[in-house]
Amino acid sequence: MIFKDSAYKKIEDIVGSEYCSRAKEETVCYSYDASASGYYPDAVVFPGNTSEVSSILKLACIEGFFVIPRGSGSGMTGGSVPVMGGVVIAMNRFNRIIEIDTDNFTASVEPGVITAQFHREVEKLNLFYPPDPSSSEFSTLGGNLAECAGGPRAVKYGVTRDYVLGLEAVLPTGEVIKTGVKTAKGVVGYDLTRLFIGSEGTLGIITQITVKLLPLPDSVETITASFFELEKAAGTVSEIIRQGIVPRTIEFMDKESIKCVEKYLDTSIAVNASALLIIEVDGRSDEVKSSIIRLKELCIETGANDVRIAGSKEETALIWKARKAVSPALFTYAPDKINEDIVVPRSKIPDMVRKINSIRIKTGLTIASFGHAGDGNIHFNIMLDKKNREELKKAEAAVEELFDYTIELGGTISGEHGIGITKAAYMTKEIGPVEIELMRNIKKLFDPKGILNPGKIFSEH
Amino acid sequence: MIFKDSAYKKIEDIVGSEYCSRAKEETVCYSYDASASGYYPDAVVFPGNTSEVSSILKLACIEGFFVIPRGSGSGMTGGSVPVMGGVVIAMNRFNRIIEIDTDNFTASVEPGVITAQFHREVEKLNLFYPPDPSSSEFSTLGGNLAECAGGPRAVKYGVTRDYVLGLEAVLPTGEVIKTGVKTAKGVVGYDLTRLFIGSEGTLGIITQITVKLLPLPDSVETITASFFELEKAAGTVSEIIRQGIVPRTIEFMDKESIKCVEKYLDTSIAVNASALLIIEVDGRSDEVKSSIIRLKELCIETGANDVRIAGSKEETALIWKARKAVSPALFTYAPDKINEDIVVPRSKIPDMVRKINSIRIKTGLTIASFGHAGDGNIHFNIMLDKKNREELKKAEAAVEELFDYTIELGGTISGEHGIGITKAAYMTKEIGPVEIELMRNIKKLFDPKGILNPGKIFSEH
Repeated sequence: MIFKDSAYKKIEDIVGSEYCSRAKEETVCYSYDASASGYYPDAVVFPGNTSEVSSILKLACIEGFFVIPRGSGSGMTGGSVPVMGGVVIAMNRFNRIIEIDTDNFTASVEPGVITAQFHREVEKLNLFYPPDPSSSEFSTLGGNLAECAGGPRAVKYGVTRDYVLGLEAVLPTGEVIKTGVKTAKGVVGYDLTRLFIGSEGTLGIITQITVKLLPLPDSVETITASFFELEKAAGTVSEIIRQGIVPRTIEFMDKESIKCVEKYLDTSIAVNASALLIIEVDGRSDEVKSSIIRLKELCIETGANDVRIAGSKEETALIWKARKAVSPALFTYAPDKINEDIVVPRSKIPDMVRKINSIRIKTGLTIASFGHAGDGNIHFNIMLDKKNREELKKAEAAVEELFDYTIELGGTISGEHGIGITKAAYMTKEIGPVEIELMRNIKKLFDPKGILNPGKIFSEH
Repeated sequence: MIFKDSAYKKIEDIVGSEYCSRAKEETVCYSYDASASGYYPDAVVFPGNTSEVSSILKLACIEGFFVIPRGSGSGMTGGSVPVMGGVVIAMNRFNRIIEIDTDNFTASVEPGVITAQFHREVEKLNLFYPPDPSSSEFSTLGGNLAECAGGPRAVKYGVTRDYVLGLEAVLPTGEVIKTGVKTAKGVVGYDLTRLFIGSEGTLGIITQITVKLLPLPDSVETITASFFELEKAAGTVSEIIRQGIVPRTIEFMDKESIKCVEKYLDTSIAVNASALLIIEVDGRSDEVKSSIIRLKELCIETGANDVRIAGSKEETALIWKARKAVSPALFTYAPDKINEDIVVPRSKIPDMVRKINSIRIKTGLTIASFGHAGDGNIHFNIMLDKKNREELKKAEAAVEELFDYTIELGGTISGEHGIGITKAAYMTKEIGPVEIELMRNIKKLFDPKGILNPGKIFSEH
C-alpha cells in the first residue's frame, strides 16, 4: 500500500511532529528485530496514550496504510518487523507502572515497560512476576504478551499467559476494548484476554495490562551439573521431575554452547563437558536447602561428573551471565543464525538431542543447542553464512527434519518465540487446515481491512 | 425450530436406537441444571465417539435443529439446559481416562469423566489435578472446562484454564479441530484452547482434553478459625496473603451458612460464630506444619475467638462435609435460591460483606454468604419462594445492587459459574458494547447457523 504524504501530516496532527518521523536514519532503527532486517517502515510514530493509538488505527483504516506495533524489537521470529512497509507504532512512551497493588497482588502496567525493570520494582515490594524471557533486560511486557514469552522459570511458574488477568487494547478498527478482570477469577464472556496473548500483534494493540503477582520466594539456590555424556544430562531432566522435585529452572547447554561461551567470556564453566544443567530451586530457605542436597545426589546418581552448588551471589550471577551470553556468543562461529525453539515432552529430550546430534554429524553443520530443558523447550541454533547457498539449503533441510521429528515426538515447533515470518511456512506441519482457516477468520473479524501487522503467522502459500 | 421425525430417524442411524431417546421420562432428565428447570429437549442422544458427535452437528446444520452439549447438568447458570428445545448431546459415554503420563505430568481424558474420579486416579500415581469445584463428585471435566470451573484450591493453584494444554473439539459445523499442545509450552497460532474454556458450550463440543498435572503435595493440613465479628474474618483473609503465606484454600462461611449447616447435619462447627474461615495448607510436611502454626497465631491476632487445627482425617472430612453441605442445606430456609458468585479484589471483602449485611437488614431477605474468600470469590445466596412476587422483586433488586457494587469495587459478576441464562441480562454491567459485539461475532464465526447451545451468554435484549 502507498503511504501518502497527507496521511503522514495527519499522523503529525495526532501525536505532534516531535513524536513521529519519516527520516531514514530513524526508520532504519525499526527495520529489524532479532531475526530479520531490511524491512523499512514508511514512518515511525510514538503515541503517548491510548486515544492517540486509536486515532492512528482509525486513520489507517481510512487512508489505507499498514500499522505494525513494536515493543523493543527483540523478537526472534520477525513479529514486529514491517515486512510490507507501513507505520511502526513504537510503544516506548507507554512506560509507566501505573499501580502495584500489594494487598491484592496485582499490578497495572503499560506495555512499553521493560520486563526486568518491572521485576525489580515488584521485588522491592517483596512481590514476584515470574515470566523472565532471556531478553528481559531489554524486551517489553507488551512484546512478552504478544509472543506469550516463557523463559527459564516456566518449569515451575508457567508462562506469560498464566499471569495476565486483563487488558486494554485498541482494535485494528480503532475501537478501544477492555478484556478480562482485575481479580483472581473471572468467567464473564469469551476469553479475549488470552486470545490476544500470543497473537503477535495481529489482533490489536495492547495499551494496558493487569497482571497477577506472587509473593517473592524467600530463597533461591543454584546448582550446576556437568556431564560427559549428553544423553545422561537429558535423562536427568525427566528424573528430577519424576522424583517430585519442581525446580523453578532446569536449563541445558550442549558442548558447542559451553565451548563457545567459555571462549566468548574467557571463563570456565564446565571444562570438557558434553552438557551442562543449570538448576535453580526457590521457596522457603530450609526447603530450598534440602532440595538442593537431594538434587546434588540425584545428579551424581544419574551420571554427572561434576556437581556444584553456587556458593555466592557472584557465582550465581556468573552462571547466568554465561547462560544468557550463549545466544550472542554463537555469532563468533558464523555471521548468521537459524534459531528455533521447539518443545518436546520432557521424557523425549534424550531422543531429540540424539536426533540433533545425528543431523550435525550427517550434515557437518555447526549446531548448538541450549534452552529450557525442564519444559522440554530446546533452542537449537544452526550457525552459518546465509550467503553460502549450499550451506543455507542444508540448514533449511535440517530445520525441516527437526520440525518433523518434533511433531512425531508429540511436540510443538514453537514454545515461546511465536511464528512471525520465520516459521510461517512451517505452521501447517502442526496446525491443520480447518484450524488455520478458523484463525484466519478470527484475524479477519478483528481486522476487516487487514491493516494490522500484515504478513505474520499465516503463510501466503 | 421444529424437530422433525426424519431428523430423529437420522440420529438413530448415527448412534444406534439404544443411544437416543425422545421419551418424556427420558428427556425430563435433561430439562434442568442446578439453576433452572422445565426446558425439555426434543430428544437426548448419547454419542460414543467424536465422529458421531460430528455427524450429529452436521445433521443439525442441514436439518435445522438446536444442539445442546451436556456433562452432568450440575451447572449453576443454565449453561446446559435446552432453553429453546433441540437435541441434548449427553457426553456420558465419553468417560475414559485415555492416558496418565507419569513422565511428563500430563493426562489425556474424555470430557465425560467425573472430576473427582479423575482426582482419585491421578492421585494413585502421586500426581495432582488441582481444579476442584464443589460439584467435583458429580460434575464432569468437560463441564468444568465449558464453565472454567474454579473451586477452593484456586487461591494457590488457579482455575481450570490454567491446567488445560490442548483440546479436540467438534465445531458447530461438524468439523473436528485440535487445539493447543501436549507440552508445557506452545505458541503456534491463536489460543483457541482458552477461547473454548469458559465459552459455555457455545463454540463447539469438546471431545478430548489434555491437561497438565503437578506432583501430589506430601502433606495437607486444615485449620478453622471462627470469629464473633464477620468483618474481622474478612480482614484476616487479606492479612494472610499480605504475610506471604499462600494457603491452597481460604474458605469462608457467614453466620446464616454456619447455623443452617449445623442444623442440617446435626453437628457443631462454630457455635455462635458470625463467621468461619477454613484454611488449608499443602506442601512438604515440615513446611506445612510451620505454616499452620503461623496461621493459628495470625488468626488469633486478627481477632478469631477460636482456632482449631484438624487433628485427624476424619475431622478434616467433617469440616469439608459441612462446607460442601451449605449449598443444599440452604433449601431448608426456603424452596428457591438465587445464587451468585461475584468476585472482588481480596482487600475489598470487608466492604462487600458489610454491603451484603446492609442489604439483608434493609430488605429483610434471607441471605447466606460463603465461598472462596482467598480469591475474593463470594457466593451470596438469597433464599426465597419465587412464587412470592414481592419477595422475588426485592431479591432481584438486591442482586442488581450487589452486582453494581461488585463492579464499583473492581470485581466481576461471575468468578466460576459463568453467564448461561441466569446472568445474561446483567452482562452489560461488566462488558461494554464493543466487546459484546466482538464476542457475538466470534460466536457467529464458529456457529454460522446458530445451532449450538442457543440463548446462552448473550442477552436478547
